[in-house]
Amino acid sequence: MDIDTSKERLDDLGRNGFCIWQNPSLFCFGMDAVLLSHFAEISDKARILDICSGNGIIPIMLRALDMGGSYTAVEYIKENVDLANKSIAYNHMEDVMTMIHGDITDENLVLPERLYDVVTVNPPYMIGKHGLVNDFDAKAIARHEITCTLEDVVKFAAKYLRVHGKLYMVHRPFRLPEIMNEMSKYHIEPKRMRLVYPYVDKEPNMVLIEAVKGGNPRLTVEKPLIVYKDVNVYTDEVKNMYQG
Amino acid sequence: MDIDTSKERLDDLGRNGFCIWQNPSLFCFGMDAVLLSHFAEISDKARILDICSGNGIIPIMLRALDMGGSYTAVEYIKENVDLANKSIAYNHMEDVMTMIHGDITDENLVLPERLYDVVTVNPPYMIGKHGLVNDFDAKAIARHEITCTLEDVVKFAAKYLRVHGKLYMVHRPFRLPEIMNEMSKYHIEPKRMRLVYPYVDKEPNMVLIEAVKGGNPRLTVEKPLIVYKDVNVYTDEVKNMYQG
Repeated sequence: MDIDTSKERLDDLGRNGFCIWQNPSLFCFGMDAVLLSHFAEISDKARILDICSGNGIIPIMLRALDMGGSYTAVEYIKENVDLANKSIAYNHMEDVMTMIHGDITDENLVLPERLYDVVTVNPPYMIGKHGLVNDFDAKAIARHEITCTLEDVVKFAAKYLRVHGKLYMVHRPFRLPEIMNEMSKYHIEPKRMRLVYPYVDKEPNMVLIEAVKGGNPRLTVEKPLIVYKDVNVYTDEVKNMYQG
Repeated sequence: MDIDTSKERLDDLGRNGFCIWQNPSLFCFGMDAVLLSHFAEISDKARILDICSGNGIIPIMLRALDMGGSYTAVEYIKENVDLANKSIAYNHMEDVMTMIHGDITDENLVLPERLYDVVTVNPPYMIGKHGLVNDFDAKAIARHEITCTLEDVVKFAAKYLRVHGKLYMVHRPFRLPEIMNEMSKYHIEPKRMRLVYPYVDKEPNMVLIEAVKGGNPRLTVEKPLIVYKDVNVYTDEVKNMYQG
């Protein structure tokens, strides 16, 4: 992949000095990663596995929020792995975070731990290559199910989660029936869900889900998460996530 | 069942003079029936089948809203069927609505039509007999899965829906994963969903679902339906449903 490294930049996460290296040619984290990190409820001892990790934003954000004790992240695109390693160094996370360049559909992929307490994932949202012009574009891989499907993600999470371990996923609401069916198929039970509405009178454009491996069926749908109270004005809840 | 018929009363639906006979000892319709009727999008020609019909509120409300051409309703409790028949007479619906006293789990149950365009259902919300003291109470049967389960409801709907026919269901959000799994099992695809939040900052207590038999997977989650803007003050949207 031919990436212009001159576009790399270091962005401040606004939390305890944590920063992240990003390259707009590859992938820059969006509000989905921020909302998922704040939706998560994770102890400071938990072993966390992040998949479809991109530049490692979720584990680094969780660290900044004092969640998790150790982090493994898997990413398919080498250039993202390189960026994530620069962020790990910048944030002094070498002893707690391992970035793995790999493919979750590769059965020979080996992770540092056999089982994890938590899996986090911000997977590609779009089905297959729908509407796509360039398969090899890093942004396309982040957005479209080119290298892994929803089922691949859930199956991989189920394989590496301990019993009663938690899966945190952010996705698009239009995929909800499939998400619930795949989770059910792999015995991961949705326990907590929150819909993200850009405005109080608009359709939701994101859904946050906490699911438990081997859990009993009973979902708590939480109060709506509303992003903007006016054009370009965050609600207090979202403002607090960005300002700390 | 020993029912005090002296408690029967005729309630005005506030729409074109339509009224419904109710008995508080048996079952009185709630906001769920009102919201489901307004959520539905049904032509004035459609053949509608309502199951777990209670006193027939949903088909009568749909008629009042000019949705549907003919109505079949199935109800387990004889006393509810009797009340529904009084309402059918009061509203001059004898030629378009048939109330059937029957059990949807009875394979010998015969309906007037082989297939329907639309199935509506406001099923019992609570799993099994959880927290129940009296199995034979009419209110308990309306609320708990004593005479039919969620799967019975979806299976029955699938049997009587034509291809691309629509199922409208109101239920509790905590059952969403099961609802989606059962629908998937019987090839009924959730296409439109709306969560009902009592207040903008509270958890939703109802979910409205439109699903299509043999539909493709893609769910539209609609803007939040918020019931109250202040204590005892409906939002305009809900006020309009009651005032017509």
